[in-house]
Amino acid sequence: MTELGKGAEFDLIRALRARWGKLAVGLGDDASVLAMTRGDRLVVSVDAAFDRVHFRTDWFSFREIGYRAITAALSDLAAMAARPTGVLIALALPRNDERELLEIADGIADAVSAAGTVIVGGNLARADVLSLSTTVLGEAHAPLGRAGVQQGDLIYVTGELGGPRAALRALSGKQAPSPALRQRLVRPVARIAEARWLAGNGAVAAVDVSDGLAADAGHLAAASGVGIELRSDAVPVFPGATPDDALAGGEEFELLVASRAPIPIADFVQRFGVPLTLIGAATRGEGVQLLRDGERVAPPTGYDHFST
Amino acid sequence: MTELGKGAEFDLIRALRARWGKLAVGLGDDASVLAMTRGDRLVVSVDAAFDRVHFRTDWFSFREIGYRAITAALSDLAAMAARPTGVLIALALPRNDERELLEIADGIADAVSAAGTVIVGGNLARADVLSLSTTVLGEAHAPLGRAGVQQGDLIYVTGELGGPRAALRALSGKQAPSPALRQRLVRPVARIAEARWLAGNGAVAAVDVSDGLAADAGHLAAASGVGIELRSDAVPVFPGATPDDALAGGEEFELLVASRAPIPIADFVQRFGVPLTLIGAATRGEGVQLLRDGERVAPPTGYDHFST
Repeated sequence: MTELGKGAEFDLIRALRARWGKLAVGLGDDASVLAMTRGDRLVVSVDAAFDRVHFRTDWFSFREIGYRAITAALSDLAAMAARPTGVLIALALPRNDERELLEIADGIADAVSAAGTVIVGGNLARADVLSLSTTVLGEAHAPLGRAGVQQGDLIYVTGELGGPRAALRALSGKQAPSPALRQRLVRPVARIAEARWLAGNGAVAAVDVSDGLAADAGHLAAASGVGIELRSDAVPVFPGATPDDALAGGEEFELLVASRAPIPIADFVQRFGVPLTLIGAATRGEGVQLLRDGERVAPPTGYDHFST
Repeated sequence: MTELGKGAEFDLIRALRARWGKLAVGLGDDASVLAMTRGDRLVVSVDAAFDRVHFRTDWFSFREIGYRAITAALSDLAAMAARPTGVLIALALPRNDERELLEIADGIADAVSAAGTVIVGGNLARADVLSLSTTVLGEAHAPLGRAGVQQGDLIYVTGELGGPRAALRALSGKQAPSPALRQRLVRPVARIAEARWLAGNGAVAAVDVSDGLAADAGHLAAASGVGIELRSDAVPVFPGATPDDALAGGEEFELLVASRAPIPIADFVQRFGVPLTLIGAATRGEGVQLLRDGERVAPPTGYDHFST
């Protein structure tokens, strides 16, 4: 690890390196050098989280804020069926509070460890508002995109949906969510191993559920030039959430995948201890059609930062 | 290019893709897929720019803000003698102003084109303050780090220094800097080709001058476990700047390199049209010693976001 010079910023970086230990690789030069794996392809993505837009410091601990920011970014790699090889974090802090910084660092470490990856770069800046911008690097033999869904393909979703939205509703109403709902909100899981298994067992396209199931199904449909029909009564609902939470709630980080042939659900559940549910099919046409008791209903809209 | 779904955020991304054309690669999936070059190593870095910390919208146009943010990040790759292969940009906007966004986008395109690279990913978020977090990816056969300077190595710097600091001083005093000084501030150049040539012509370690010449020499010294003596009267000063500007001014994005043998300066100047100047040597001990008329003087301190 490169020795750092003097100064308050380097002192903070030293504190981070000490906190992260072997999870931090190559911080200290102008850039970090990584080995490439022959034959695989590099898969990259960036995601950002800002205080009062993507999280609130009165609802989440600093450790949870760090964990969620990294997990949200890693989930985009999972959606591509890529194996993470490193993350870079641009952290902006409103004050020089080393305790807060190290709590965020511990949350980052939780997420990085859970994904079996390392921290390969970062930047510290002073700004008015706390934010984390996370770049994830990964590799994949055969990355899964959003395009490639064909008419007749089967649509599956991992996990149970609606928990984060139900927990946020409770917090918005100044009520404590149940421990299970709160845990679902603050400790989502990037489905990295699950995605790679699904890619090896029939999945032809995937997206992670970050905007909301109906909205993300719309992204899959638009990218593939097909329609998608979802049976809303088939969508698995997290205990304590409503069916509407399951359709509209974002930041689930579950996987929505399309497959030409049936996926062996029991094998998936046995291997990962996570539900996998057939919830619809790709059709002719465009957009998402939601069927409730066999009748078409209007899909809810996902959260869009730039809507008026 | 993956088709995008509906919504105001996708409309902005569509506008960006239209604006960038062939400069944008693979935006639209959860992550972007890049080919890897066999034999080279992946070099990565992240940098962030926040309004009122790293720039001011009353001093810079939006196009200049976009250009400078990307160039600052690319300069970290240059310091490693890496060839850029792509950039990812997390952009946070305080309002839904497509004109501002596209001006920033044009500045990003200017910097990306100048470096011969492409945009491979991004994220758009609404936030209270304009910011750009830029991740750069590159590849290098033999990356140049900050460590590896040995006692007796010669220390060189590219370009003429102090211009950005002199321009900022004028702006701080509500005066217009000269056109040449303003241009030097708003259109710095990442020394990418220069760095690769230097790596092939004797350079053994490098850093880009982003904190200030004396401060960055300190980073090189700390990383290498040596002292560095700089002859302040040898440091090339940008016309209109002072010798102190040249020692203390940041955001130069020139290269400070160490070499075991003399570098053929005339070849460098002829090839790039940029000065290359021998300004000192590595010594026993630690830290930076500044010699003025043969006498030791205290080095100025560079800008440190986290100093009190």
